[in-house]
Amino acid sequence: MNGLTVAAAQRCVIETMRRLGTESVPLQQALGRVLADDVRANRDQPPYDVSAMDGFAIRSADVANAPAVLEIIEDIKAGDMPQKVLAAGQCARIMTGAPVPQGADAVIRVEDTHAQVDDHVQIAVTVKSGNDIRERGESMRTGEVVLAAGTEITPGVVGMLAMVKASSVLVYRQPRVAILSTGDELEGLDEPIDANKIPDANSYALMAQVQALGIEPVLLGIARDDPDHLRGLLQRGLQFDVLLVSGGTSVGVHDYVRPTLEALGVQMKFWGVAMKPGHPMAFGVAPLTWIFGLPGNPVSSMVCFEQFVAPALRSIMGLAKLHRATVSVKLARDVKHRPGRTDFVRVMLSKVADERLATPTGNQGSGILHSMAMAEGLMVIPAESKGIAAGEMVTVQLLDGTGFQGESGGEW
Amino acid sequence: MNGLTVAAAQRCVIETMRRLGTESVPLQQALGRVLADDVRANRDQPPYDVSAMDGFAIRSADVANAPAVLEIIEDIKAGDMPQKVLAAGQCARIMTGAPVPQGADAVIRVEDTHAQVDDHVQIAVTVKSGNDIRERGESMRTGEVVLAAGTEITPGVVGMLAMVKASSVLVYRQPRVAILSTGDELEGLDEPIDANKIPDANSYALMAQVQALGIEPVLLGIARDDPDHLRGLLQRGLQFDVLLVSGGTSVGVHDYVRPTLEALGVQMKFWGVAMKPGHPMAFGVAPLTWIFGLPGNPVSSMVCFEQFVAPALRSIMGLAKLHRATVSVKLARDVKHRPGRTDFVRVMLSKVADERLATPTGNQGSGILHSMAMAEGLMVIPAESKGIAAGEMVTVQLLDGTGFQGESGGEW
Repeated sequence: MNGLTVAAAQRCVIETMRRLGTESVPLQQALGRVLADDVRANRDQPPYDVSAMDGFAIRSADVANAPAVLEIIEDIKAGDMPQKVLAAGQCARIMTGAPVPQGADAVIRVEDTHAQVDDHVQIAVTVKSGNDIRERGESMRTGEVVLAAGTEITPGVVGMLAMVKASSVLVYRQPRVAILSTGDELEGLDEPIDANKIPDANSYALMAQVQALGIEPVLLGIARDDPDHLRGLLQRGLQFDVLLVSGGTSVGVHDYVRPTLEALGVQMKFWGVAMKPGHPMAFGVAPLTWIFGLPGNPVSSMVCFEQFVAPALRSIMGLAKLHRATVSVKLARDVKHRPGRTDFVRVMLSKVADERLATPTGNQGSGILHSMAMAEGLMVIPAESKGIAAGEMVTVQLLDGTGFQGESGGEW
Repeated sequence: MNGLTVAAAQRCVIETMRRLGTESVPLQQALGRVLADDVRANRDQPPYDVSAMDGFAIRSADVANAPAVLEIIEDIKAGDMPQKVLAAGQCARIMTGAPVPQGADAVIRVEDTHAQVDDHVQIAVTVKSGNDIRERGESMRTGEVVLAAGTEITPGVVGMLAMVKASSVLVYRQPRVAILSTGDELEGLDEPIDANKIPDANSYALMAQVQALGIEPVLLGIARDDPDHLRGLLQRGLQFDVLLVSGGTSVGVHDYVRPTLEALGVQMKFWGVAMKPGHPMAFGVAPLTWIFGLPGNPVSSMVCFEQFVAPALRSIMGLAKLHRATVSVKLARDVKHRPGRTDFVRVMLSKVADERLATPTGNQGSGILHSMAMAEGLMVIPAESKGIAAGEMVTVQLLDGTGFQGESGGEW
């Protein structure tokens, strides 16, 4: 089998990628995007020393010989400012987040106290100065960079952005992605069943893979085996940042895609990768567009998307983590392999006696989309391998749906 | 520290969950949802024996003593039906996916052939009957269940749905989720900076956590420490399927949330969990609504969301995998622990010499939202632990953003 190695092809793809400028989005739409600029704190947080607990602000010297009974001179809740200064033998009832009054140097949580009559409270424990007080600026100080450019916006980052009142944020622009299937044999989703045709699964599987990255792609439909029709749709596709073309990339005489792309000024970077499935994988660049030629069968197309398109789209979006997370797990049964190409085997993952196992999902024929639908991971068989025996450790790329598990991880 | 164990509280929450009926959505909006009905094949796929390769359909007996030169009697491309029957010494040029003509029992890929003049081809290899032929119905047979009710709709499943022409699919309804923050100390995202107030990060961090599950929540804003205002907003929240209320759940005298919820007919199931952060976590049910009382500080609130709210929302949506995926990794440095409660420690993950390490993200004070923004996982310290030493194996829940990694997993 000819073609670049998977690693060389990946390098070739990623090296041509660049970000597409920036845009401002409301915080409500920022999840999953990448910060294009440093974000700085606009206040000290907390703005003064505050209580970390519901309880009593005290002078630690007063409770050195606890139990001790103190006089309550004030109630301070979050949002209030203290009105009084604590003297010896005095305390203030204080809520979590409320400012610690002058004179106090510690907080005793309410669980360590006993209510008394006449505005007094018994403190049951001894504490050090500073106990359960959050110092001014502990969370952030005005002007410091709290989030660096290039940060992926996760829920925790959204929280931080709200903390610095960023109601809109500058992020890298997402690529506009178009998807085109090719071939007279394909039947559109809304067309009636024709036994002589094959449903166009590729357009929708690729659509969902793009959606899973947070991008809503445009489906251009099916280009028929007619040079003019194909040319028109490819021209439309070249108005997008990224064009995914599935089918029409193998060596058959009926494939017009390659010459048409080249006639439209696309410079092909490679055509063929030493992998299975996915050998016909191709990649090229036009002045405004990156073009991925994906195999016609859905499994191959999805596997190639994971190896080349997803890292490319993530790179364009400014993400640092481009590749599927991998785990090292034990192979459940022997897998054959012919050296010379990298194999991607669909596997299910399971846990037996605390050991994680990868089991191939039955028929690995490239036409069996069902095995891809069921797969939790793609096991990578290196090109030089002569086969892997049951019990050996293998590398598995984790696919969508593996972020959660059935068990809660044990009894806590 | 009082309260249910984390495991008991989780069971209590999940036991009250139920699905909310079904709805039909277009395939374009189905990603991440769960099938509410079995999906059956509506055709045989492939509809007849087809070629798995671009090459030549042959009679295997004719190449038993390869090399052999055969006469090409026809070109069959995908979408064509063969017009002729192969006799001895004959072959047909055939494309991937095209029907195998009568008389042929194998396909030879084009790479194993040499073109000849005058419509002849030399076959270089010997193959068995059936070689590179995909049999009728190999991918699916009419009427068979190809996707079972309860299946999570991943990109591969979207591809399968397109394969059976499911332009719309029956899925479980998503819960409608409302988010309410409480407390006079909070400053809204669009309000000017007030040094005496704390920005409302909770509403937005929770929003993003809900969005990460594919649900767009409604933000009800900030309820002030005024019984009527709070009551009005809680009443509005009780019109949703799920209401998240942050703040106002601790034991201080200024907390109106509990009595107001109870006055509105909410039956509280628990109030307090033996965990850190997150001790004030509460949960209750109303006739139409599940209510989660989350702590007022954003880190605690986010940790509680991960342990209780995310599994609940996923259960309502019909998903089988409710809990964050966990990994077992080596702890990078000693971590102290006081027995009696389950700790959730924010950690970063790294890989050193093929070994995965968890490193706590510095200050674990519950107010330090930055540590949550940076965290890749939550290390779980079991309630009975007396501390964990560097080098011991720990369980880490993987947070958003860990589905991808910087390295491609080695040279393939």
